[in-house]
Amino acid sequence: MMPVQPLNKKTLTTIQAKIDGKTKPLGALGALEPLALQLALITEQRLSKSSEHNSSHKISLNKPAMMVFAGDHGINEENLSIAPSEVTKQMVLNFLHGGAAINCFCQSNNIDLTVVDCGILQPISPEEIPEILGTKGHSAKFVELRLAAGTNNFAVTAAMSIDQVEQGFANAQELVSKQVALGIEILLLGEMGIANTSSAAALMSALTSYSVEQCVGRGTGITDEQLNKKVSLIEQAMLRVKSSSQQPADLDRDLTSEEVIELLSQLGGFEIVQMVAAILAGASASIPIVIDGFIVSVAALIALRLDKNVANYLIFSHVSQEKAHQALLGELLAAQTFTQPYSQPLLDLGLRLGEGTGAALAFPLIKAAANFYNNMASFESAGVRV
Amino acid sequence: MMPVQPLNKKTLTTIQAKIDGKTKPLGALGALEPLALQLALITEQRLSKSSEHNSSHKISLNKPAMMVFAGDHGINEENLSIAPSEVTKQMVLNFLHGGAAINCFCQSNNIDLTVVDCGILQPISPEEIPEILGTKGHSAKFVELRLAAGTNNFAVTAAMSIDQVEQGFANAQELVSKQVALGIEILLLGEMGIANTSSAAALMSALTSYSVEQCVGRGTGITDEQLNKKVSLIEQAMLRVKSSSQQPADLDRDLTSEEVIELLSQLGGFEIVQMVAAILAGASASIPIVIDGFIVSVAALIALRLDKNVANYLIFSHVSQEKAHQALLGELLAAQTFTQPYSQPLLDLGLRLGEGTGAALAFPLIKAAANFYNNMASFESAGVRV
Repeated sequence: MMPVQPLNKKTLTTIQAKIDGKTKPLGALGALEPLALQLALITEQRLSKSSEHNSSHKISLNKPAMMVFAGDHGINEENLSIAPSEVTKQMVLNFLHGGAAINCFCQSNNIDLTVVDCGILQPISPEEIPEILGTKGHSAKFVELRLAAGTNNFAVTAAMSIDQVEQGFANAQELVSKQVALGIEILLLGEMGIANTSSAAALMSALTSYSVEQCVGRGTGITDEQLNKKVSLIEQAMLRVKSSSQQPADLDRDLTSEEVIELLSQLGGFEIVQMVAAILAGASASIPIVIDGFIVSVAALIALRLDKNVANYLIFSHVSQEKAHQALLGELLAAQTFTQPYSQPLLDLGLRLGEGTGAALAFPLIKAAANFYNNMASFESAGVRV
Repeated sequence: MMPVQPLNKKTLTTIQAKIDGKTKPLGALGALEPLALQLALITEQRLSKSSEHNSSHKISLNKPAMMVFAGDHGINEENLSIAPSEVTKQMVLNFLHGGAAINCFCQSNNIDLTVVDCGILQPISPEEIPEILGTKGHSAKFVELRLAAGTNNFAVTAAMSIDQVEQGFANAQELVSKQVALGIEILLLGEMGIANTSSAAALMSALTSYSVEQCVGRGTGITDEQLNKKVSLIEQAMLRVKSSSQQPADLDRDLTSEEVIELLSQLGGFEIVQMVAAILAGASASIPIVIDGFIVSVAALIALRLDKNVANYLIFSHVSQEKAHQALLGELLAAQTFTQPYSQPLLDLGLRLGEGTGAALAFPLIKAAANFYNNMASFESAGVRV
């Protein structure tokens, strides 16, 4: 992985002065103001590496790309979700046919949509793909980057091998690099994978001070019984991982990259692995990355543990109904250093769907922040004298 | 005013079943689900009156129109705002030149923008209008519906006459009716008027059980001293209005329309009066009306007191930083009857700008709700079996 550059804060004062000079009371655009500051800093960072000099200092968000990473989870043999694992593939086909919520929201907001099979149970067969061509509406492009037919059940064994993690990293790095070369200037992430809140909750607990119980929620809507089972299976997995690990319990230092990758192989999902790498690749290309709900936020946390400079490239689209999402966002927001007070998740609509829906819904707010930064008059230029 | 039709709830079960049958867990789209229900009910209501039968039962939100109503306030001679009243006109010119936040957000979201001079201090002169034609960017259309050169200082006398209220009602009714005849299917409202939070706070207190102190906030950012003065001047106005009124204090019945109009003439602003009528006209044409921040919400409250059927046509775009807005939204949301639990304001971004900015920013979420309702596959059609 290429290292992520820290944002160059030399231009921060200039950018903030430009925001403050717009024809509005100071701070009156609320959360859109630190968002504009962040977008402007990221744009400056990106263009400073480019041969084209951007003398206009405008935020540029061309070719927004939503990538939905899909994978299946061995732990769902324990019946931890409202749906069987076969639904992951059914929903991937739904994305390809343009029928899911994420298709609608990408269409509404002119976002290009790609679905990545990172390892669902049954691959999309050649006979299923031609049908897609005749589909109306906003269908998705399809990329196959399968690591296997679903992960192992991490309650009893490692979800995947270290080799699979590394292959996943290489896959997503290449995918994102290609897209960046084609001109995308903002990356939005989503996921699909029945039972992937289990994997995400386990990873959150392993990488923060939160207990398993604090990290586990109801996903798309499981019963009390399923919830209890989910907690105890994940606790079982954590014990397994701890006992197999060389490290002392509760060690008082940051984890090494190798340790983070070991945790990812033990508890991860194929879609989570590839999202971690997509985030690192996007940030190292200096483009903003829009984070969706709980699962994508866990991928962001892992990326952050691998490279702390990732934090300032992340935009948090919404806080979902998943119990631990608010706490997780707290960890992620606290790692941002470009502004005080912290920025905030843009939406709080009680979503609990995933697929990238929150990120797609927040995109117009991000465009609006760029638009006011680029186009709004200053007091001076408008002749407004308060 | 034409009476507002109650929503026909005969189709509610069908619409809810359509939402529940979409390829997502029940309720997983959070606040967008009651919003889609509301939009579908309003569309059915509108089309039931039309000769064109809509057999598709699709939500239609063509030609979104933002109308920003501007007016000046005599009470600002008491120095209750961060800015002198001249800034109202300067900002109207900024709207016409395309330089304000509302221009940027309407441009971002493809919303047609009209600015209505309801009675700013100095009219826009003919020499100022030609300049506008050469302006780049997303400039606003201009409509002149002046009731006078600013209101009277309502701390000491009635803000306007009953005749002016009635003229304002007629103006806005005609303006909105014309727009509806031209095919607008959703109306968004905004306002501009230095010191208009004073008028709005007074009206809120007069029409609810909240005290003046509970209704008064910092507007765009006044000092403690200005805040205390604002409270005491409004309390003074309330005493004046009560002593001149025929009605007993704290009467235990709903106000009559005449009493509401009397309060509006005592405490109102020209932009508030015309927004009340715009809301009534939009609702009586069965189109959804997107409410912006505190001032527009007060206009909605007055419209509601004049015709309770207005409530279900209102969409609350955001909760602003103005202190009393949350409580005011509580009153308005409680009047909605189309769904339980209540719908909610869509955004909470800490905005305190007005101009319709919150409404324009929320519009993509409203379009997204319509899009998922119209286009998302059902479990049956997509072959998804949970």
